[in-house]
Amino acid sequence: MSPAFVSFLSDYGLADEFAGVCKAVILRVAPDARVIDITHEIPPHDVRAGALTLARAAQYLPQGVVLGVVDPGVGTGRRAVAAEVESGYLVGPDNGLLAPAVALLGGAKRVVSLTNPEYQMEGPGPTFAGRDVFAPAAGYLASGVDLAELGEEIDPLSLLPGLVPLSRPDGDGVAGEVLWVDRFGNVQLNLDPDELAVLGLRPGDRLGVDVGGERRTARWVTTYAEAGPMELAVVVDSYGLVSLAFDRSPAAEALGLRAGSAVTLRPLAPVGDA
Amino acid sequence: MSPAFVSFLSDYGLADEFAGVCKAVILRVAPDARVIDITHEIPPHDVRAGALTLARAAQYLPQGVVLGVVDPGVGTGRRAVAAEVESGYLVGPDNGLLAPAVALLGGAKRVVSLTNPEYQMEGPGPTFAGRDVFAPAAGYLASGVDLAELGEEIDPLSLLPGLVPLSRPDGDGVAGEVLWVDRFGNVQLNLDPDELAVLGLRPGDRLGVDVGGERRTARWVTTYAEAGPMELAVVVDSYGLVSLAFDRSPAAEALGLRAGSAVTLRPLAPVGDA
Amino acid sequence: MSPAFVSFLSDYGLADEFAGVCKAVILRVAPDARVIDITHEIPPHDVRAGALTLARAAQYLPQGVVLGVVDPGVGTGRRAVAAEVESGYLVGPDNGLLAPAVALLGGAKRVVSLTNPEYQMEGPGPTFAGRDVFAPAAGYLASGVDLAELGEEIDPLSLLPGLVPLSRPDGDGVAGEVLWVDRFGNVQLNLDPDELAVLGLRPGDRLGVDVGGERRTARWVTTYAEAGPMELAVVVDSYGLVSLAFDRSPAAEALGLRAGSAVTLRPLAPVGDA
Repeated sequence: MSPAFVSFLSDYGLADEFAGVCKAVILRVAPDARVIDITHEIPPHDVRAGALTLARAAQYLPQGVVLGVVDPGVGTGRRAVAAEVESGYLVGPDNGLLAPAVALLGGAKRVVSLTNPEYQMEGPGPTFAGRDVFAPAAGYLASGVDLAELGEEIDPLSLLPGLVPLSRPDGDGVAGEVLWVDRFGNVQLNLDPDELAVLGLRPGDRLGVDVGGERRTARWVTTYAEAGPMELAVVVDSYGLVSLAFDRSPAAEALGLRAGSAVTLRPLAPVGDA
Repeated sequence: MSPAFVSFLSDYGLADEFAGVCKAVILRVAPDARVIDITHEIPPHDVRAGALTLARAAQYLPQGVVLGVVDPGVGTGRRAVAAEVESGYLVGPDNGLLAPAVALLGGAKRVVSLTNPEYQMEGPGPTFAGRDVFAPAAGYLASGVDLAELGEEIDPLSLLPGLVPLSRPDGDGVAGEVLWVDRFGNVQLNLDPDELAVLGLRPGDRLGVDVGGERRTARWVTTYAEAGPMELAVVVDSYGLVSLAFDRSPAAEALGLRAGSAVTLRPLAPVGDA
Repeated sequence: MSPAFVSFLSDYGLADEFAGVCKAVILRVAPDARVIDITHEIPPHDVRAGALTLARAAQYLPQGVVLGVVDPGVGTGRRAVAAEVESGYLVGPDNGLLAPAVALLGGAKRVVSLTNPEYQMEGPGPTFAGRDVFAPAAGYLASGVDLAELGEEIDPLSLLPGLVPLSRPDGDGVAGEVLWVDRFGNVQLNLDPDELAVLGLRPGDRLGVDVGGERRTARWVTTYAEAGPMELAVVVDSYGLVSLAFDRSPAAEALGLRAGSAVTLRPLAPVGDA
């Protein structure tokens, strides 16, 4: 039998002991579990960034438990939940963090609100739910405790949905926004290559990129290295989404882009064909 | 039988290979051990910060070995030690780093000085004791080697104590200091809520906070989210200590506080009751 | 039998999910494997820094697979390779990253180019070879798949060599360069203590250090703590190379040094013996 994996994402950072203590709690409950750190460097309280990261990672995680903790509403009325999906369970706050990953993993079959104190740690205060509520729940699920033990069942449709920004037509182009800037400064947009295809664009084409009131020209290439020195490239990235990049140089910085920035792509006015 | 856990804290950071190499050494000695990273981002040489972090984490760690390495005196006369406690062993330099955690875990039953070269790696120099002395010791203990094999027994009372800053009365209030600023900018003080209670303060009360010669007003709340926008909150944190916080905003930055800063809390002069 | 270890180094950082997803992929392929993070904070695209870090770590890693990913040429013609050595396998791009570690581990006995798509993940684009090519290869090797299955055998001598900077005589001294500045600001040079010995220098001696057109005086000591306050020390570091350091203070910053900087060491003009 495979070991029980717990894939763990949070905004706890690695400077404090928060993530380490949560892992210790998981392993006290489930000594044979194996914890995989997805990342703990989600910006503090940034539920959207956490939800997008979890969604990008979801399909690559092994069967087991996914633990997500980005929880600005800790100690308020927001529910703590565990959702059963085809490949296992997702555990975290009901604030939209888990919703996109749940959807990508085929939807929730059962959801409980984590209200049973027998499966929680007693903390001196309600401010570290990762340690006291979520990590124990992940550990118990990894060790085979039935979901129903952890609290009362709730309607999967009552989970707070994640906010996925939609693109929209903009004249002859398509207006999107930045989902993610990665370590290399590559800029992922909320655009599918199909949305470029319906504009008549094809790999190899040059296209217009409107950013911050300025028009730039880019070329649709297949790999970063195809771009010339400081040539702005449009690349379908490793998650299948349209991204902006330079070869070996951070595009986000050069273009002044960060998560949430508006970007419009459009065909260049035909010149040679006139 | 449970796997042998080694919970590991250091000031090695994650940019260099130091922590990774120590883990590799542990696992060469004890292939079935499981290493839990508490944190490696203790500020370089900051024994006090390391000791406090280890103390906060100690009660949550699984049975096994705790390895702590913050070792500004590497290569000097400071002893390398391993201490046996109820839940296992603590390994590290004898510079106060381990002492608070040892005390919290019930005190040392046996301590040895790590002097037996048979249980050490031969390094080209004495500057990386984490790799050459401490990691091997942790690995051998995790694999079942008897503590007495690792060196000569020493008096547990001879261990260098950790420095725990004490609070003191200050007029009608209590003067403390900042123990820790976490990633979210929350400010943990060396004050127990009982020390507020003896001043006649209760949850829900407003109180005075003296910082850097300035008086501010705060409210004693139960969760961060209870605080109004930019209302300074006094919260009993997840370790049971008094902390200063804003809801979703870093208090340390706003108040100019860092580890070691002085903070005095006092009741507000009664007005309505006059 | 020992578990199958995969020691993993990359420039993916820890803020994005890249390293976590690669580990997830390894563990989906080889659920019983154990991943050791060497570091993921190699500066983006810095193949030289990655190669030097891997070389420093190599001899301490347990038997098994070493996975290295610093891959600025992803998607270009650079080969993806796996090399068999005495202690296991090294997997990564053929860009010089693996070469010094391969040499230190006794040289490659067999090398394949990772061209068999059956042992790769199908990604939507060719930009994340860590996830789609290298992590699966590491996982399959850890789970016992024969190297020959992963692609066609290539000549070990055709691997791109790593660039190791050589020292050279400079008048009465020896001119070297900075290989590495660690977290503590210690400065490792590409000089062996033997190169100081041939200049007639011995531990305890004072010597001249030329940096950026300026001459400083240092003393050859055995541990950092032997140096006086702000006395520049020459220390044989934990890897057996000559380094520059201050006791508990970052030398790199004080001297304006970083990886690649030129440093010349020379005996001081004899005075007392005249």
